[in-house]
Amino acid sequence: MNLLKLIDSPADLRRLPRTQLAQLADELRAFLLDSVSKTGGHLSSNLGTVELTIALHYVFNTPEDRIVWDVGHQTYPHKILTGRRDQMHTLRQLNGISGFPRRDESDYDTFGTAHSSTSISAALGMALAAKTKHENRHAIAVIGDGAMTAGMAFEALNNAGVYDDINLLVILNDNDMSISPPVGALNRYLARLMSGQFYATAKNVGKSVLPAPMLELAKRLEEHAKGMVVPATMFEEFGFNYIGPIDGHDLESLIPTLQNLKHLKGPQFLHVVTKKGQGYKLAEADPVLYHGPGKFNPAEGIKPAATSKLTYTQVFGDWLCDMAAHDKRLIGITPAMREGSGMVQFEQRFPDRYYDVGIAEQHAVTFAAGLACEGLKPVVAIYSTFLQRAYDQLIHDVALQNLDVTFALDRSGLVGADGATHAGNYDIAFLRCIPNMVLMAASDESECRKMLSTAFQHNGPAAVRYPRGSGVGAVVGKDLDTLPLGKGEIRREGKRIAILAFGTMVAPSLAAADELNATVANMRFIKPLDTDLVAQLAQSHDALVTVEEGAVMGGAGSAVAEALAAAGIVKPILHLGLPDKFIDHGDAGQLLAQCGLDGAGIAAAIKKRFDKGEPRLVVNN
Amino acid sequence: MNLLKLIDSPADLRRLPRTQLAQLADELRAFLLDSVSKTGGHLSSNLGTVELTIALHYVFNTPEDRIVWDVGHQTYPHKILTGRRDQMHTLRQLNGISGFPRRDESDYDTFGTAHSSTSISAALGMALAAKTKHENRHAIAVIGDGAMTAGMAFEALNNAGVYDDINLLVILNDNDMSISPPVGALNRYLARLMSGQFYATAKNVGKSVLPAPMLELAKRLEEHAKGMVVPATMFEEFGFNYIGPIDGHDLESLIPTLQNLKHLKGPQFLHVVTKKGQGYKLAEADPVLYHGPGKFNPAEGIKPAATSKLTYTQVFGDWLCDMAAHDKRLIGITPAMREGSGMVQFEQRFPDRYYDVGIAEQHAVTFAAGLACEGLKPVVAIYSTFLQRAYDQLIHDVALQNLDVTFALDRSGLVGADGATHAGNYDIAFLRCIPNMVLMAASDESECRKMLSTAFQHNGPAAVRYPRGSGVGAVVGKDLDTLPLGKGEIRREGKRIAILAFGTMVAPSLAAADELNATVANMRFIKPLDTDLVAQLAQSHDALVTVEEGAVMGGAGSAVAEALAAAGIVKPILHLGLPDKFIDHGDAGQLLAQCGLDGAGIAAAIKKRFDKGEPRLVVNN
Repeated sequence: MNLLKLIDSPADLRRLPRTQLAQLADELRAFLLDSVSKTGGHLSSNLGTVELTIALHYVFNTPEDRIVWDVGHQTYPHKILTGRRDQMHTLRQLNGISGFPRRDESDYDTFGTAHSSTSISAALGMALAAKTKHENRHAIAVIGDGAMTAGMAFEALNNAGVYDDINLLVILNDNDMSISPPVGALNRYLARLMSGQFYATAKNVGKSVLPAPMLELAKRLEEHAKGMVVPATMFEEFGFNYIGPIDGHDLESLIPTLQNLKHLKGPQFLHVVTKKGQGYKLAEADPVLYHGPGKFNPAEGIKPAATSKLTYTQVFGDWLCDMAAHDKRLIGITPAMREGSGMVQFEQRFPDRYYDVGIAEQHAVTFAAGLACEGLKPVVAIYSTFLQRAYDQLIHDVALQNLDVTFALDRSGLVGADGATHAGNYDIAFLRCIPNMVLMAASDESECRKMLSTAFQHNGPAAVRYPRGSGVGAVVGKDLDTLPLGKGEIRREGKRIAILAFGTMVAPSLAAADELNATVANMRFIKPLDTDLVAQLAQSHDALVTVEEGAVMGGAGSAVAEALAAAGIVKPILHLGLPDKFIDHGDAGQLLAQCGLDGAGIAAAIKKRFDKGEPRLVVNN
Repeated sequence: MNLLKLIDSPADLRRLPRTQLAQLADELRAFLLDSVSKTGGHLSSNLGTVELTIALHYVFNTPEDRIVWDVGHQTYPHKILTGRRDQMHTLRQLNGISGFPRRDESDYDTFGTAHSSTSISAALGMALAAKTKHENRHAIAVIGDGAMTAGMAFEALNNAGVYDDINLLVILNDNDMSISPPVGALNRYLARLMSGQFYATAKNVGKSVLPAPMLELAKRLEEHAKGMVVPATMFEEFGFNYIGPIDGHDLESLIPTLQNLKHLKGPQFLHVVTKKGQGYKLAEADPVLYHGPGKFNPAEGIKPAATSKLTYTQVFGDWLCDMAAHDKRLIGITPAMREGSGMVQFEQRFPDRYYDVGIAEQHAVTFAAGLACEGLKPVVAIYSTFLQRAYDQLIHDVALQNLDVTFALDRSGLVGADGATHAGNYDIAFLRCIPNMVLMAASDESECRKMLSTAFQHNGPAAVRYPRGSGVGAVVGKDLDTLPLGKGEIRREGKRIAILAFGTMVAPSLAAADELNATVANMRFIKPLDTDLVAQLAQSHDALVTVEEGAVMGGAGSAVAEALAAAGIVKPILHLGLPDKFIDHGDAGQLLAQCGLDGAGIAAAIKKRFDKGEPRLVVNN
């Protein structure tokens, strides 16, 4: 680490002679592997961007020049080179540095990213701002081939391609990967570009067909064909100057190419080929396994975890296979999250009914709507946070037509280490306002399975929200039983206070209720809400408390209050849930406790509000 | 109308000899012009699709073969030929037929559309469903060149292009138009295709460069160049078989081409060139003016309306120019809605600060975020319903980073003739749950202007919602004054009942209050809510009533209830607003009255609930 320890900012990097950069890359890669193996985090993608990161900060005048890293989980080398080397041990931990770029963490983090495919839009905004303000800076978007399949990236290319006087550079970091293996026509196209056949074919055709003296003519024809008949690549058709593909691990290719591009006006497109996991053989061999590992020993690699509790993701994956075996109308859809959503086994067993549509949440949902129109029963497996990308499609294409689509909302509520960008805090509020929607929240693994069956059998749009990771450890059966629509259940009979708990908050509410001798209802359905149960609890208790792992504003508690108002029932009510702020990364349990959503916190909040169990009615007449 | 009156279904059409179709087209066009001139509705786009509609129903076995019409406002010829000729006089009216395809209106309407760019996704779902079910039917998406710029269309192309065994036909209806004039790189590309230079150039190169005997060789080279080196068009790069461009008004081109395509397997792409307004000279000359006219005399054309009340759209447009003149950091952004959002004048006066990014709401919002990072002050003008398309970008790129972006939400609340697909009923619920957001609702035109200034001056994300059409007729000043953040105002002092009204509901609430002698507050801010005013009104009244033009579920009334709960105030409350169902097209005023949101309805609901003004407390202890 002789060189790396000297680099506290890109200015230090830029003082190094080019001959030392390869050594720096080796040191950076070793530091990275050591660091991530101790903290957990994203590995494969970061091993793949070591040289590109060095080259970009070496050639461009950061932070005056703006680099926007798409998705942003590949920015550990960037963080290490921009003054955060000594904070890497705090990565993704409470009060530590984020696993993604953050504007409030460093001036070098010009744009917060995490959800994919935003970088070209943001960089175009920066480039046009520089033009407007007559500032001569560059804006650079670094985007992966997976992220390139999202429509938003195309919208940005389409818009950017017409400005011939901006300093915009789009770097396609092509590693033939999204988190899952790549899919779709664009990927096939990029593979053709990468294989080199693109240009080579023409030359071979010329050689085999023509006598030697005609080769020059053929070359002229080829140039015409390239330059006039059809632009060389799709990216040129969008108005970009396309360069590439070049080797993204070869600093002697990267640096001169970037230096040349720096002097060209107008939208530039550099196609860089990298390898996820580069330099660490185990990750190169299985970049999916090493995409986002926990702690591990780099010498030994990741060991299979001792069998621990089933995750909700596994509960979903098992249910999906069982229901697919039972009902041949079931179709499973994922927007590029096969592993994350637990669909590996489903793909193997039911390949004809498995669709990975790419990072394309909008398309995923409307595609499901199309299938549902024909009597099939699509299940869209999607993280709560990514459903935000398909909100209009859910409203306009699914709910408005009351189509039979099931949404399995993984990672609902706080997600822990990924932080605010990935938080599934808003789905209750943004789904329950939509007519025709059914929305359930699972309180344990067994109920999650029953809710998935319920959503699937319901003839209309229905969503089941469940959290990241494992639950209370309930035994999950093999049946496909359903729950009665819109009915909750009383889990504990108590006095005076009734806690109306949703999903993951049932367990801590039961703990709190033991202390307070309160009643606890597992509401199960956010929509349709069990208004009979609400009225019954209101009439038999002095006060109601709602608890949910979601934003209080517009949340399930708010639905309970609406139900009371609609029924003309006036009753003291306390809403517990996530506060009106973005919640940073950290251990999910710790974060929930900070929000007062563990048993102790719930009990304390109830005691504080209701004077240790005595409701205080404030009715002014 | 000798032929048209015989066509009660496409089966009738298919019995006609091809020689009679041109006459049918003439009759259909005449009927269409006459019909739309009497009802109002979309004109230019429908005049452009007469021949294409005839050809599709003539060649394909509808409704067994599925046609999905993107956007769907060009489906009047389709409606006329599929048994709804005699209902066209009820178009877009209460209880009449819809201006868009609707699955519950006809078996020929295979997929409800209205928001753009959904058709390829839906048709792909149908095509893959047919494959899964071993049904030998075709799925056809008809999509305009404007709709093609939305990322969702690319997501679908990317996914569809890899299935070589489906019966999917995508028809690009290229009329060089979205509702606004076309923008972006894709449009330039299509223009190159349409100009015919694409193929012509290659041939000319061959002729000019080569001696005659070499022409055959050149042709072989050209074929290699087309077939192997680079696919002929971007659409072929996506895996489609591309045919075109062909004249979309020439039935003798359309019908044989469609007949040929019908027998090809795999994803087919037909590029059809049409003219918006075709056959009606006034519309051909100004397709934007005739895009969606009201009633008019076809012989005279549209006459400038007598100066009537200012619309909210005009209030926004005027404010935008005035604020732009005052603050050079203002940037105006529209996703292809220059006219609809009132930005024509702004574009003329401030062309360097005007960005029409295409039908690309996602990109529009993140592009704005990029501009805001550099200290500019973007204003995104967007219909409430279309903001649903950029929900994730608003959360993840703008609100999470607390960036200074102003959202002007036109068409909030019920929109009238466009119906449920365009309703702006959900923005309150889906925006108020997002941290850092400021959300205002304008009660009149003057306040709308002040709210826009307030949002603009607020250093963070802020949205102003205002309805379609004109308001109460308040005089709008020229100043750029702001309102105090998070403060409402009492508009009428009354007794016992306090009505907390939001936006457009202030006026009818005042009318209701006159009858009841109730207090009325104009709350102005949904977020941050004026919790002091809420508490004050609760303490000085027997009951509260909230009124909003938005979904009650999760709405502004729900925010008031949350504020009461948070303050420990227990008080009877009644929430009035839009019910939990999709509301069809019709006159907006009539629809509001049906929802009980006029003065009489509000008064009646209050009397019903509170026994003619006497709150009935139901507190069970």
